[in-house]
Amino acid sequence: MAYELYYWDGIQGRGEFVRLALEEAGADYVDITREPGRGSGAMFDIMQSESEAHIPFAPPFLKDGDLIIPHVANILFYLGPRLGLAPGNEGLRHVANGLQLTITDLIAEVHDTHHPIDMSRYYEEQKQEAKARSAAFIGQRIPKYLGYFERVLRQNPDGSGHIVGDALTYVDLSLFQVIEGLTYAFPKAMDKRKADYPALLTLHAAVAKRPNIARYLASPRRLPFNEEGIFRHYPELDSTE
Amino acid sequence: MAYELYYWDGIQGRGEFVRLALEEAGADYVDITREPGRGSGAMFDIMQSESEAHIPFAPPFLKDGDLIIPHVANILFYLGPRLGLAPGNEGLRHVANGLQLTITDLIAEVHDTHHPIDMSRYYEEQKQEAKARSAAFIGQRIPKYLGYFERVLRQNPDGSGHIVGDALTYVDLSLFQVIEGLTYAFPKAMDKRKADYPALLTLHAAVAKRPNIARYLASPRRLPFNEEGIFRHYPELDSTE
Repeated sequence: MAYELYYWDGIQGRGEFVRLALEEAGADYVDITREPGRGSGAMFDIMQSESEAHIPFAPPFLKDGDLIIPHVANILFYLGPRLGLAPGNEGLRHVANGLQLTITDLIAEVHDTHHPIDMSRYYEEQKQEAKARSAAFIGQRIPKYLGYFERVLRQNPDGSGHIVGDALTYVDLSLFQVIEGLTYAFPKAMDKRKADYPALLTLHAAVAKRPNIARYLASPRRLPFNEEGIFRHYPELDSTE
Repeated sequence: MAYELYYWDGIQGRGEFVRLALEEAGADYVDITREPGRGSGAMFDIMQSESEAHIPFAPPFLKDGDLIIPHVANILFYLGPRLGLAPGNEGLRHVANGLQLTITDLIAEVHDTHHPIDMSRYYEEQKQEAKARSAAFIGQRIPKYLGYFERVLRQNPDGSGHIVGDALTYVDLSLFQVIEGLTYAFPKAMDKRKADYPALLTLHAAVAKRPNIARYLASPRRLPFNEEGIFRHYPELDSTE
């Protein structure tokens, strides 16, 4: 039976980390809200169900038969071994999960660069605060996160080609997306700093060239970034300092 | 061999979710930075190591032999089965992990009520923005999160005494801590709303009465909440609206 992915249509968003793993593995999956004529109805039906035992708090969530699994890192922890995208031993799977949860925290901070005060209000209503938060994010948090991932790559005893173990995992795919997204949202900041992260950039380029990923990126299933998603390009938030 | 927990001394913080599980299970563990004469040195040594393969991004992290596991939800996913605090089947373990990750998101939002702009600067330097963010948190996010957990409890086919399955899990312990923390940080807001969450309050009271938890809460190992932790009581951020 095909995996069912439930996520907002029209954006890459958090769902994209799951899509990249499914696409790399050539898995059979249905992106429910993008199915012709479907829309978000089925997604809301599950979230608002008054009888379902395991309702998710928010999308994305994965449905595998009767099992409903919410949260990107949780979905990837579940799918990883099934898709051949997780380390073989239990300890390293928790290492992978720890790395993915650091990516989760980074993504939440990216979201807050444009919504630092109130996620239910428009960006334009919190633009001044967004500028201040973005300055701190660019000045301190991007170097802290990317510097960390660069170190983990460099210190991987199996080589810096993968973030954990000696083969591709879903975390490598997610790091590709992090670099894609940050480069879209903060091109000036990234242009200034990216030379500091050679191993991360090498990984990013290697993932982009994988046949299934390259095919996916060139397909209409890969939506372009836009200003409804997590990674948004507002020139006034980008800077070289 | 004893589990080693690495976390900042002096606060409950994120480490407390791990402590509650270890204490409930009566597990053998060492709270490294609180050991006499230890301090944070050993924690920084691991984080800053230039040879360690699996360096954590931030505390808390758990050391079990050679394995280093970062992030609260990841630590609890790992410990749960070992401590008898996780569901027996794999699917429900991912349900538990999904709930724990929703708690993780809530905790990050709690942190941002007092640090909405820049986590490296003092609260006093972002107080006005903190007031705006707290108002949105109290008005919209607390009801959304607690309303969600209340529904999950109510819709648990095994009864509303536990958030997942028919027995105590680490997620129940974490929900106890969520109610404790929100009540400390936002007493007026919680006093006004808590009657909306009867199943959650019943769970909170049941956890507090468990012998190992009651003993822990009365011990010096349970530090009081304070304004260095995640849950901070700043009266100017609390409100009934």
